[in-house]
Amino acid sequence: MHEIQYDELGQYRHFLSVEGSSEALLTKLLDDTEQFTAVAERRVKKLPLLNGKTIVNLFFEPSTRTRTTFELAAKRLSADVLNVNIATSSTSKGETLRDTIANIIAMQCDCLVVRHSTSGAIHYVAEHTPAGIAVVNAGDGSHSHPTQAMLDMFTIRRHKQQFTGLKVAIVGDILHSRVARSQIHALKTLGAAQVNVIAPLTLLPKSIETLGVEVHTSLTSGLKDCDVVIMLRLQKERMNGALLASESEYYQQYGIDQARLKLAKPDAIVMHPGPINRGLEIASEVADGPQSVILEQVTYGIAVRMAVLSTTIANQQQQLNNLATKIAETANNGGLA
Amino acid sequence: MHEIQYDELGQYRHFLSVEGSSEALLTKLLDDTEQFTAVAERRVKKLPLLNGKTIVNLFFEPSTRTRTTFELAAKRLSADVLNVNIATSSTSKGETLRDTIANIIAMQCDCLVVRHSTSGAIHYVAEHTPAGIAVVNAGDGSHSHPTQAMLDMFTIRRHKQQFTGLKVAIVGDILHSRVARSQIHALKTLGAAQVNVIAPLTLLPKSIETLGVEVHTSLTSGLKDCDVVIMLRLQKERMNGALLASESEYYQQYGIDQARLKLAKPDAIVMHPGPINRGLEIASEVADGPQSVILEQVTYGIAVRMAVLSTTIANQQQQLNNLATKIAETANNGGLA
Amino acid sequence: MHEIQYDELGQYRHFLSVEGSSEALLTKLLDDTEQFTAVAERRVKKLPLLNGKTIVNLFFEPSTRTRTTFELAAKRLSADVLNVNIATSSTSKGETLRDTIANIIAMQCDCLVVRHSTSGAIHYVAEHTPAGIAVVNAGDGSHSHPTQAMLDMFTIRRHKQQFTGLKVAIVGDILHSRVARSQIHALKTLGAAQVNVIAPLTLLPKSIETLGVEVHTSLTSGLKDCDVVIMLRLQKERMNGALLASESEYYQQYGIDQARLKLAKPDAIVMHPGPINRGLEIASEVADGPQSVILEQVTYGIAVRMAVLSTTIANQQQQLNNLATKIAETANNGGLA
Repeated sequence: MHEIQYDELGQYRHFLSVEGSSEALLTKLLDDTEQFTAVAERRVKKLPLLNGKTIVNLFFEPSTRTRTTFELAAKRLSADVLNVNIATSSTSKGETLRDTIANIIAMQCDCLVVRHSTSGAIHYVAEHTPAGIAVVNAGDGSHSHPTQAMLDMFTIRRHKQQFTGLKVAIVGDILHSRVARSQIHALKTLGAAQVNVIAPLTLLPKSIETLGVEVHTSLTSGLKDCDVVIMLRLQKERMNGALLASESEYYQQYGIDQARLKLAKPDAIVMHPGPINRGLEIASEVADGPQSVILEQVTYGIAVRMAVLSTTIANQQQQLNNLATKIAETANNGGLA
Repeated sequence: MHEIQYDELGQYRHFLSVEGSSEALLTKLLDDTEQFTAVAERRVKKLPLLNGKTIVNLFFEPSTRTRTTFELAAKRLSADVLNVNIATSSTSKGETLRDTIANIIAMQCDCLVVRHSTSGAIHYVAEHTPAGIAVVNAGDGSHSHPTQAMLDMFTIRRHKQQFTGLKVAIVGDILHSRVARSQIHALKTLGAAQVNVIAPLTLLPKSIETLGVEVHTSLTSGLKDCDVVIMLRLQKERMNGALLASESEYYQQYGIDQARLKLAKPDAIVMHPGPINRGLEIASEVADGPQSVILEQVTYGIAVRMAVLSTTIANQQQQLNNLATKIAETANNGGLA
Repeated sequence: MHEIQYDELGQYRHFLSVEGSSEALLTKLLDDTEQFTAVAERRVKKLPLLNGKTIVNLFFEPSTRTRTTFELAAKRLSADVLNVNIATSSTSKGETLRDTIANIIAMQCDCLVVRHSTSGAIHYVAEHTPAGIAVVNAGDGSHSHPTQAMLDMFTIRRHKQQFTGLKVAIVGDILHSRVARSQIHALKTLGAAQVNVIAPLTLLPKSIETLGVEVHTSLTSGLKDCDVVIMLRLQKERMNGALLASESEYYQQYGIDQARLKLAKPDAIVMHPGPINRGLEIASEVADGPQSVILEQVTYGIAVRMAVLSTTIANQQQQLNNLATKIAETANNGGLA
């Protein structure tokens, strides 16, 4: 489905989706991330890896958190960063997505980090980007948000060492979550034993069980014996009244507090992609409690993005080099013939 | 008219307008641009030319494209860039243009890149800027947009080698175009044989023929035997209903498609400053066709801006040095007298 | 009150307020600023002092001027700068201040430069920031704006050499001014002989005289024999009709023109934090006259912010090092015991 994201050696030249990626490839990304977490511990946090490269943050939707962590990741790798916020820009002048992309590409950047409200838009961008330029998905529609999924996987591995045998619960607005789908794919690929999705029926996408998850409409049954509890953000701005009876009723049934967390394993970790709605999907006692790893997720998010940016840009560069070599060889052979 | 933009040697210390500049000066700028296009081909695209210099993008009007290419140009020269968007800023607190400029100057930057909706505003800025600080016009009112004009000239020279004998058509909203006027001046100075402007009477400025162009109200007569076809953007946001019967009627009469393009020479190139309105002033078959050089224009835009920034900042620095030498000599002579 | 801003040696590890700081500490900051003013004179204005450090401009209120000078100061010290404008960002998604701060901290930056509309908000931020990260107040509510106060002090010292014996007038909207309070504290601490505040009763905070100032409701009495006249900006956007009869009446009574300036000493300097309202609190003849030092204030503002950023970040780093040493010693002693 996302074949376009791999180069001839099966490595990432774009990073569009975790769906379909092999366990080996995801594991390599986690291993690379491990290296970059060490950089943040140093006095001088910068590496010269992407010196002279230009990364464009092309955001068709506002996002402080994701944009900021991508910008930090790029700067720690010594790249130049250009923020282009299209919500307030040329598309208001009626330009098509394809023309916007073609123009940014003509500016000769090395990587496009794209967020868009439409599912599939970033795949479309990658299809229209020539060799040498990496495209990274920073969230598209309700489709996927692969760097968020990978920072979640990294956080889990840091705390649980391995995925084999793990039981993971994902709780909340599965329907509108661009994160949940990516998380499920990553968890299944990396070998988690069981993934429970827990939500009211109105917040569950149709046929979600075809992804290999167990569906629960009750926290009590869903959290039982879990090693990892991933709470999703209740996307208030995306819901209309029909989907939920009331916020307080939601919290009563699907919000997590210290008492309910006891349903999971005693050493279960609690995750959340942020920003959190205290008292809506998560109680403060849990968010700030000893089992919460929510802020670690933010820290690891930068390292994951450093790994993604450096990997995809290096592979695109390699591809250009291979192309140049082939052309030279062809010319050479022609000369000898 | 724009004498203020030249230093004692007749070189650019500001870049305000192409109007009145000599052929030699415009040609030198095109030659410098040639050098900078090579930088974009390198793995590390940065040059240390403006290391330690600060360039302020002072935009009184929003513009993603122009702001972005200036920012990229500055960063490729290793300058620090400060984006100041005044639309959402202190002028809303009632500050005058002169005070805004005086404040930015007091911050000791080396170059102001200014866009303003009022014709002449940037000339005014240059008049109120002390020696040592370059002012670059990034578009003022419907007056001029000289870096756009020069990237157009560069694109033409790349494809046609020289201007002598060239026949160029400029089609569309001449009245509201800040680009057309600059293009006409540059083309006439560089020796183009003939410049046709093609537009409905309602979109033609009064006395446009005094600039030495041939006025056409019909594409058929205007495009005949042209080497270069420059389509202008239809500034929908600037027009009221009175000027145009309807968009579809406009396209029928002044939009360019493959059939009409045949009126020009077979090897004619098609240009557009962007963003394009597909199906309004240009058909997709032309915009994406083999004669279109629209995206090359974007690429060359960065090199032109690198040439403008490095030239004006270097000349300002030279002027400061000359001043210091004179003061030292005066002091010395005083000492000897 | 702001004990949290000092490290064990009484040096700034945050910069929250001038209130309570000793004369020695404020003088040291002015001396450091003196050094940094020299950098702006150099061809290459950058110092490598904060290379590899990340400074986040976290603005909960828009401010071009203050944000821009902090960004310039950071870049001249070779730091990476991240602008986070919260007005248009995650708080609109309902995130608490504490969560926003916790998230930024998790991104492992070295310094937060914060502006907030609520008095005390930045003190709160400092309380929730771990060792190693400096917090700098870029203006909070009507409480304080300490870097503005220090650039004012620096400007005064440059022109008057010392504070002893100085008579200073502060004129205008004392009630809503986040600057006035900081200025008064700094002036009293540095030894100014007398500080007059001059305003209509409706623009005077209750009990302002407890800060050790002389209250005047008339310019005539208040300006008499002053060495320094600080005009405040009339915060039109913060006032309702009840506080002022009319703008013209205000100017007549509290605006400064050349005639009224004669009430002060002949060599008095006139200051203003900007942006100025010409013809409302200050006449153009004064703003642009020989006694005005308003634009020098802007220039010195960058040097002051360079001093504040480099000092606080260095002291935070030192604190981390001390902590590491202590831990090592404890481990060592344990090993020997």
